Amino acid sequence: MAFTFQINDEVKFKHDERLLNKAKLYKPTIHQETITPKSIVELVENSRQLEGWGVKDTQDITDLPDIKLKRDQKIVLDFGDHEVGKFSIDINSAGSPMDAPLFIKLKFAEMPAELKHKSEDYDGWLSKSWIQEEYIHLDVLPTHLELSRRYSFRYIEITVIDTSPKWQAVFSNPQVQSETSASTKDLSIPAINDHELDNIYQVGLKTLQDCMQDVFEDGPKRDRRLWIGDLRLQALANYATFKDIGLIKRCLYLFGAMTAEDGRIPANVFTQPNNIPDDTFLFDYSLFFISILDDFQRFQADEELLRDLYPIAKKQMDVALDKVQDNGELILDDSYPVFIDWSNDFDKNTAGQAVLIYTLRQFIHLADMMKDNVGGYSQKLNKLISYSQSELFDEKKGFFVSGPQREVNIPSQVWMVLAHVMDDRLNKQIMQRTVDELFPVTGIATPYMYHHVTQALFEAGMKDEAIKLMKGYWGQMISLGADTYWEAFEPAKPDYSPYGSPILNSYCHAWSCTPVYLIQKYLI
Amino acid sequence: MAFTFQINDEVKFKHDERLLNKAKLYKPTIHQETITPKSIVELVENSRQLEGWGVKDTQDITDLPDIKLKRDQKIVLDFGDHEVGKFSIDINSAGSPMDAPLFIKLKFAEMPAELKHKSEDYDGWLSKSWIQEEYIHLDVLPTHLELSRRYSFRYIEITVIDTSPKWQAVFSNPQVQSETSASTKDLSIPAINDHELDNIYQVGLKTLQDCMQDVFEDGPKRDRRLWIGDLRLQALANYATFKDIGLIKRCLYLFGAMTAEDGRIPANVFTQPNNIPDDTFLFDYSLFFISILDDFQRFQADEELLRDLYPIAKKQMDVALDKVQDNGELILDDSYPVFIDWSNDFDKNTAGQAVLIYTLRQFIHLADMMKDNVGGYSQKLNKLISYSQSELFDEKKGFFVSGPQREVNIPSQVWMVLAHVMDDRLNKQIMQRTVDELFPVTGIATPYMYHHVTQALFEAGMKDEAIKLMKGYWGQMISLGADTYWEAFEPAKPDYSPYGSPILNSYCHAWSCTPVYLIQKYLI
Repeated sequence: MAFTFQINDEVKFKHDERLLNKAKLYKPTIHQETITPKSIVELVENSRQLEGWGVKDTQDITDLPDIKLKRDQKIVLDFGDHEVGKFSIDINSAGSPMDAPLFIKLKFAEMPAELKHKSEDYDGWLSKSWIQEEYIHLDVLPTHLELSRRYSFRYIEITVIDTSPKWQAVFSNPQVQSETSASTKDLSIPAINDHELDNIYQVGLKTLQDCMQDVFEDGPKRDRRLWIGDLRLQALANYATFKDIGLIKRCLYLFGAMTAEDGRIPANVFTQPNNIPDDTFLFDYSLFFISILDDFQRFQADEELLRDLYPIAKKQMDVALDKVQDNGELILDDSYPVFIDWSNDFDKNTAGQAVLIYTLRQFIHLADMMKDNVGGYSQKLNKLISYSQSELFDEKKGFFVSGPQREVNIPSQVWMVLAHVMDDRLNKQIMQRTVDELFPVTGIATPYMYHHVTQALFEAGMKDEAIKLMKGYWGQMISLGADTYWEAFEPAKPDYSPYGSPILNSYCHAWSCTPVYLIQKYLI
Repeated sequence: MAFTFQINDEVKFKHDERLLNKAKLYKPTIHQETITPKSIVELVENSRQLEGWGVKDTQDITDLPDIKLKRDQKIVLDFGDHEVGKFSIDINSAGSPMDAPLFIKLKFAEMPAELKHKSEDYDGWLSKSWIQEEYIHLDVLPTHLELSRRYSFRYIEITVIDTSPKWQAVFSNPQVQSETSASTKDLSIPAINDHELDNIYQVGLKTLQDCMQDVFEDGPKRDRRLWIGDLRLQALANYATFKDIGLIKRCLYLFGAMTAEDGRIPANVFTQPNNIPDDTFLFDYSLFFISILDDFQRFQADEELLRDLYPIAKKQMDVALDKVQDNGELILDDSYPVFIDWSNDFDKNTAGQAVLIYTLRQFIHLADMMKDNVGGYSQKLNKLISYSQSELFDEKKGFFVSGPQREVNIPSQVWMVLAHVMDDRLNKQIMQRTVDELFPVTGIATPYMYHHVTQALFEAGMKDEAIKLMKGYWGQMISLGADTYWEAFEPAKPDYSPYGSPILNSYCHAWSCTPVYLIQKYLI
């Protein structure tokens, strides 16, 4: 997630210390590993890669200590894979005594294209502070430079802004202490015969791993915090791979502990300098708290977790159901928008209705486990389904329609299929028609929405189409040079950045890691 | 000093550990004081100040914590006087939770004009690394930011490069821990009735104080190291004020301990990361080792210091005298140039000859103290004087002439007068003629050379002219806004920077502090 929603200083939040203490109990150990760069490279044109930029090896990494850099000279180190961690390097001077400070710039890049763009040229709305660049003065050499911040990168460009005419800067022992809370202890990687799918799986696994930190982060480069929409997908990917349920419990407790006065769960929370809920609320995101809790119980029943969080889950559903008319129609307003996808160029009413059905089914399962009275919820579910079937499905078109203009769009079909509003036969027809008439997908740039499209194809029994979409989407990111999956990618416009510059893009983003889940669930 | 001379990796140096240990013994205590800014200001046009820029108060400093800054907004804090030290400030966020790092730029300026110039526009030969600017990312607020480097400044401009659209940055508790090794324990400030001279004295004292650190630095902003030419003047100023002879001894030992293989003392030494002599040699600078040692003994006889360093002083003289012809003419070559002044637009032969006479007189005094045989040196002195009187003084012109073109320039007159090559009557005539025919001084931009001109006027008994020059030079710097005296200043071109931008200038520079010495010696 990267969007900025309404700014609201007025919202009051609860801080349930009992639940926050449980979140603290599950604070993970950060595993570190020392990684050294594999080569010295330079940026080269490569039409097959993102924005037409790749790298080529220019010198052996063992030559690094022999390279003397003066004003305006630079080197690019390639760590060979995406890394998240802290960088250190030894720096010395060569030539006459050091008669001025050394002034260097370090630029960390996940993709080669970022090296082509200058931060000075960026003037978008997203904060420039995300650009992974540091300017550093060093008064005395030799020194061991250890940067205190954590970066997300594969490439480091070191530019000597100035030495003096009398000496040069020399660099050695660059390394990153990589950081992740993912443990490989319980990791089982399935044997995947299809080489392309195997690659797609591996990159997804690395993406998930690099986003697993003190919480599930949405992107280790940008945002770096816990969004509930991302959490739902990360948790599913995690059950399929690392099986690190402690981190999921931590995140569930964090959300459960900090609801607004009206009971709603915020779309994201901060954990630095202390636990702080954000003042952003999204209808579907709040409901996904139910979904995550239910997914958890299905992976491994946990009575304590359920007992602690069920009341909060129930509150989300009650708030949501308040917005349902007697006829079963969900009516949303701007104060509590439904996300579905970044794009606001399609009508989201029907997809929102479907998400409510999807999560209400999960809520009823939780209520059953809690032996809570589900009668009223089942009635509401039937009304929501019935309204969807009779009023939102256009039999002539064979599609769900959305909003006053009765718009036909992919997200409506996808979410109605995921919510199993129709039977399997009709679901398959809807998705087949979606493929035939609405594909190729346009106007959607997030792996988040692509995940749901792919899963809807799987759910509708269209395995081949699902694989084709997975290869055409996540596979294409790999072709363009991805070591981890991106926050945003639109196959029709591969170079498009939602922020106007790739230096603001997050090229390792949690909500894109789901091929590991989809492959495990539907193909193994 | 700021000039870069020949680059020479080949020079070998001695490291006399016994003398280096003595230098270490006199390592000073750094005294710290907490200073807080006096006001919040903004840059305003002021035609009377340097480059036409001054500041005006815009807000009370107590308002600082109420100021919320977002992207591209800035504040300037005015500490009210020149300070050398480490800066710290508390930073918090206001508004929604901090959903992006804070990215700020801190710019430290000695003079308002520096705030007008952008570092990006500077492309001179002097290292950009001297520009006192830091770019800092802060991932978590609130924080207490303590910069590890030492800065030399009166003004701090804090620019918020970016927050996010949802929150602003708030600053509070800015302070500098000022640093100097100067102790006011033995400081006695003379009562000076002339208000202008009193001001000139005070600014000189602050200049000296801010340059007294672990060694006598030439400039706490730029160069920050021990040059022997600056040391000579700082030591003289120091005897007249703080009387901190330990620091002078430390610096003498540092130079004495690290001579080149051929015995010459380098023009400057570094003390970080360890003691390193620079590979720059200047004829007059090496000789000033003698001068500093002799000035010391005249202030306070120190047998141990004399015994330790006399052989090194003698070596400087012997190397120098090797370049004197039988007729008493000093002939220098490019491998060992004479400095005299930054400017290379005048012939320096005669001034060089005079410096040799000046320091040879002092050497003979030292040799006498050591009961060394001075016979040969006295003979050489007579020859040097005799050649100067007969060959270098043009009776018709009434001036010393220099070089093959028999050029008449101020430095030749000044140094010959300081060396007392002529008798007092003739010295006065020469200086009077200098004032009448060669003033106003042109082509000289250093307080270093202006010091010698002023002192020559005093030595020639022309007190009023000396005061006039002092007021016209150092006094004009104060008029232009100086809190400390500058590395370079040419009254005819007050805005001239030898580096093309004031952000590279050092506005607190040791070799300009000498009014405290001149006033004490000649006017009290």
